[in-house]
Amino acid sequence: MAVDKDYIYLDNAAATRTDDEVVKAMLPYFTEIYAVASSQFSHQPGLEASEAMNAARESIGQKFKVKPDEVIFTSDAAESNNLAIKGFCLANRQKGDHVVTMKTEVYSVLHSCRSLEESGIRVTKLPVDSGGRLDPDDFRKALTDKTILATIQWVNQETGTIQPIEQLSAICREKGVAFHTDASYAAGRIDIDLAKIPVDMLTLTAALIHGPKGSACLVRRKSVKLKKLTDGGFNEFDLRAGVENIPGIVGLAKALEIMTSERFDKVKKLDAQLWNGLSGVEDSVLNGSPEHRLPGILNVSYDRVEGESVILHLDMKGIAVITGSACFSRSLEPSYVLMSMGHSHERAHGSIRYSLSHGNTAEQMDRVVAATKEVVERLRRITPVKK
Amino acid sequence: MAVDKDYIYLDNAAATRTDDEVVKAMLPYFTEIYAVASSQFSHQPGLEASEAMNAARESIGQKFKVKPDEVIFTSDAAESNNLAIKGFCLANRQKGDHVVTMKTEVYSVLHSCRSLEESGIRVTKLPVDSGGRLDPDDFRKALTDKTILATIQWVNQETGTIQPIEQLSAICREKGVAFHTDASYAAGRIDIDLAKIPVDMLTLTAALIHGPKGSACLVRRKSVKLKKLTDGGFNEFDLRAGVENIPGIVGLAKALEIMTSERFDKVKKLDAQLWNGLSGVEDSVLNGSPEHRLPGILNVSYDRVEGESVILHLDMKGIAVITGSACFSRSLEPSYVLMSMGHSHERAHGSIRYSLSHGNTAEQMDRVVAATKEVVERLRRITPVKK
Repeated sequence: MAVDKDYIYLDNAAATRTDDEVVKAMLPYFTEIYAVASSQFSHQPGLEASEAMNAARESIGQKFKVKPDEVIFTSDAAESNNLAIKGFCLANRQKGDHVVTMKTEVYSVLHSCRSLEESGIRVTKLPVDSGGRLDPDDFRKALTDKTILATIQWVNQETGTIQPIEQLSAICREKGVAFHTDASYAAGRIDIDLAKIPVDMLTLTAALIHGPKGSACLVRRKSVKLKKLTDGGFNEFDLRAGVENIPGIVGLAKALEIMTSERFDKVKKLDAQLWNGLSGVEDSVLNGSPEHRLPGILNVSYDRVEGESVILHLDMKGIAVITGSACFSRSLEPSYVLMSMGHSHERAHGSIRYSLSHGNTAEQMDRVVAATKEVVERLRRITPVKK
Repeated sequence: MAVDKDYIYLDNAAATRTDDEVVKAMLPYFTEIYAVASSQFSHQPGLEASEAMNAARESIGQKFKVKPDEVIFTSDAAESNNLAIKGFCLANRQKGDHVVTMKTEVYSVLHSCRSLEESGIRVTKLPVDSGGRLDPDDFRKALTDKTILATIQWVNQETGTIQPIEQLSAICREKGVAFHTDASYAAGRIDIDLAKIPVDMLTLTAALIHGPKGSACLVRRKSVKLKKLTDGGFNEFDLRAGVENIPGIVGLAKALEIMTSERFDKVKKLDAQLWNGLSGVEDSVLNGSPEHRLPGILNVSYDRVEGESVILHLDMKGIAVITGSACFSRSLEPSYVLMSMGHSHERAHGSIRYSLSHGNTAEQMDRVVAATKEVVERLRRITPVKK
């Protein structure tokens, strides 16, 4: 545990700190109620485990205004996305063979689609505008009578760009196409009322809302038929095999419960403060949609510097940010998200993602602005690339 | 948390109490080091997460005498079994189209095989003898030049029957067939040295060795090619998408580390005491192999009583056991494991599984014997079924 207490963690769009209250809620399910839920018909400890799981299902259902049995627990957003996309197409293949998605989706969506292509499903990957937004008219035009599923993320993981999900899902409902959204970055921050918004399936993960890693869910309307991908027992309404991760499930529900608007208001303020400072850095530019951006994910490119160098210097100054594609800075590939937005190789390479949480402070934002300025200016002094 | 402190939990083959030491090891990874491991090239918190994961990989590798990069972290034994069986056949289809397994395997093995059958793979499900043991000669004969994989569990989940894995894996090695074993119930109890035993893939789960639910692994030799089943990012040597569950991974390694022989010696003693008492119940019979049984899983049938009634009465007396198929007592179907062993419907229906841990006590065993005797005798007095 060598990370300094003063270290400023701004990689909250990758994973968040598990809230103390969440850990507290989980603890009894490690050491006191540790039976499997499927033993509920055999003994009291199993019943208690089952009740904890049902309570979590109910709490998450209430949050999104769906029924408890429309919440399917999984191990990760990637698993939820695989189940939603591959599971849906495998179960509904007789209805059509076409899926619509978008170029800036996360890998688990794009690669699930690619895997479907290998089995003969056609996939349309829609482009986005320079702010990363999908045009609802383009979307409507892409839907054909062979389209069975559309999967469009709610908030982009690199830029915070918000898609017009209400509009897109309504178009799908009108056309009889199932609509899935990866709401991993939206959940707990944007109010999502599925009694009003005709989203059929929604992915959510604890790791991004101050819950535990290894716990996620797929909210899916009962009318939606899915094929199970992990074979085995009959858990999760026969949609997933495996022992239920009760501590993780309890943690997910608690995390969602305490993602209050007060928390998000704090993030909004910190975000405004940070962008106010960073926009003052010479030749800095916001990546993403200025009008439709979720505060908390701030993606900025600095002309004439390499993102890779910036993050290493910021790390040395005790600040954690990333560059490039969210999960794979290692690859040194420019971000496919920014490239899809029509940005140059240089701009994509020079991009830094700052992702915040309510646990950050105003004082930290000041330090980040000062450190970024200093690092960018120093790097520009030594770069051969001229203005 | 209504379960009484005096409650006797004997369902340890379904899930175990997470050890306090394991919880302690996990806690910092919820609230202190919570970055994703793939951010290791971007910042210090990511590096720390990655180091914790690597240390866990190394520790598990050492336990089984394999290389760290032969350990693939997953969310559950079911996921490990799916990856091992479906992932292997999808990647090695050109070599053959035949898989050998056994009738008493867990559902995630049997149903993974069934799913392969749907795509044209032929599956042989070998029978077992009355003790639940597979005959190595039958096994050898079942392997053809089209066989690419055999999957045989190390220890049965309902009876504790131990299979001759050293012999079976050696036959496979000789024949050039890949060998997978679900060692969920064996790991931490039987010494498994993969430097000596030619097992190619091995499933292991934290939930059964006093680690956290939602964390498991598949040990697989580097030479074994697998197709990824969960599409997305490139984690786990590109064999699994999803954010690594670092607390779960740390917990799995710690749990395995502290599964000492002293613990198992205690279980052996408790098991002997329990069977000594239960064998004294009139018309009781052990299900499983008397010579090849893992102490800690004790499956007993009582003539002229329904297992369902026994477990409910034992529950009321504060004792958690199960009947029928391990995970699905609800179904009221007789256990397919016991039926596969050639037992009658009645014997399978009247079976009770007592599964122990080192946390149980001698005093508890005495109470369980007395309670079982009392319940069985009472039920026999009111049953219309006569001797």
